[in-house]
Amino acid sequence: MGLTREVELTQFISDEESRTKNLIVREVPLTILVNGMELATLQCTPDRLEYLAVGFLLSEGLIKKETEIKGITLNEKGWYIRVEVADDDLLEEGITSKRVIGTGCAGGISFYRAVDAKDCLPLKSNVMISKEKIFSMMKEFLGMSGLYKDTHGVHSAALCSSEKIEIFTEDIGRHNAIDKIIGECFLKRISAEDRIIFTTGRISSEILIKVAKQGIPVIVARSVPTDMAVGLAERLNVTLIGSVRRSRMNIYTHDYRVS
Amino acid sequence: MGLTREVELTQFISDEESRTKNLIVREVPLTILVNGMELATLQCTPDRLEYLAVGFLLSEGLIKKETEIKGITLNEKGWYIRVEVADDDLLEEGITSKRVIGTGCAGGISFYRAVDAKDCLPLKSNVMISKEKIFSMMKEFLGMSGLYKDTHGVHSAALCSSEKIEIFTEDIGRHNAIDKIIGECFLKRISAEDRIIFTTGRISSEILIKVAKQGIPVIVARSVPTDMAVGLAERLNVTLIGSVRRSRMNIYTHDYRVS
Repeated sequence: MGLTREVELTQFISDEESRTKNLIVREVPLTILVNGMELATLQCTPDRLEYLAVGFLLSEGLIKKETEIKGITLNEKGWYIRVEVADDDLLEEGITSKRVIGTGCAGGISFYRAVDAKDCLPLKSNVMISKEKIFSMMKEFLGMSGLYKDTHGVHSAALCSSEKIEIFTEDIGRHNAIDKIIGECFLKRISAEDRIIFTTGRISSEILIKVAKQGIPVIVARSVPTDMAVGLAERLNVTLIGSVRRSRMNIYTHDYRVS
Repeated sequence: MGLTREVELTQFISDEESRTKNLIVREVPLTILVNGMELATLQCTPDRLEYLAVGFLLSEGLIKKETEIKGITLNEKGWYIRVEVADDDLLEEGITSKRVIGTGCAGGISFYRAVDAKDCLPLKSNVMISKEKIFSMMKEFLGMSGLYKDTHGVHSAALCSSEKIEIFTEDIGRHNAIDKIIGECFLKRISAEDRIIFTTGRISSEILIKVAKQGIPVIVARSVPTDMAVGLAERLNVTLIGSVRRSRMNIYTHDYRVS
């Protein structure tokens, strides 16, 4: 299934009215079941859904790094995905500690994320990246999203070394784009430690904690962070870089990782 | 408490490195309790929190239009807000039907929102707005956010008549900005029917349903919609206008309301 759909619309350009066609981004509701139990429905862009599901479960603490995944089955007709994990007890524990009413964008589980943050230890990585690399990789990163060029309706994220972009994702949700990376790393056993995350989205506390929990010590964002994200980055020893535009950037915390 | 905080940071402009100060937007975790029961924690910008709490509860279906609110108490030290409602049974019903694990941005409750959408009836409003007004009000709307100008870290929303902006809100979350409007309308008994919503955010199915549930027949967005939002707008008889820039706009559905 495609990631875009063509729609007919009425367009005004100055006083000129016309009927025209535009591509818009697809949105699907993906329901995630773990060992048969329905846990969540994500509104998302329909690609890399196995990675999205696993990344979401990891970010929410519903599965852990040591959890063994026995199978993943995606049903693209009903938009549900079944994840089978080995340890049912671990799952039960994650669910009972997390059951709370969710919200659209602001994160109904943020209270629990604050708890997550308390358990998070400061990162020790000494990975370095040069400012020239940050500028050139941001330029490359922004150029990679064909879906953005076509629709203007998605966020992008990328996992990078200090030298190059290794995983690139897109989604209507800035959280989903990062969860797709986290899920891919988990399933392919790629270590995210000493890596760098690029994102087009704003950095709230939730994004900061999600990334720090994976041991990723550097976040490079096109947009700005909130004060809570800066405070967490300070404490968790994460280098937080924002407002990256052409030849300009702000390093909010731990600038010693930028050479 | 202020909505911004000044932070010190390292800034690169071309090859020039300096220590400088910038304003960034505040983020607080607001825990909402209804009749003593903890229902959610929202990461938000700390203003109009009474409106945000009530708007969130309405959008999520946890309270209904006929619910009588007996009191709201905000605690700004612990960032929690207590809402007392008259009918405990109604609340119980709302909660048991909604209990699900939430997600950051993609909406853990979207499955239930899809159910909401099924129950939503097509809007009958014949309100009209001229394209000149859309352009001029978008310009005014974008100029109103001092917080955006200071921090670049917030979304804005506005409730308007066909002639002028009546309520203006800002928040780090595009959902929250709209919920602040919904809550204010509820508490001040302002009818949102025949009104128009302006937003800086993208239009996903969740935003579309949130607005349509309040009987608001026209959405004007600076950004683009998803295909699911366009499909819902089509069915619910909502006029969905997006990509509004200077003298250009796309009317995705029901253009008969634009003169």
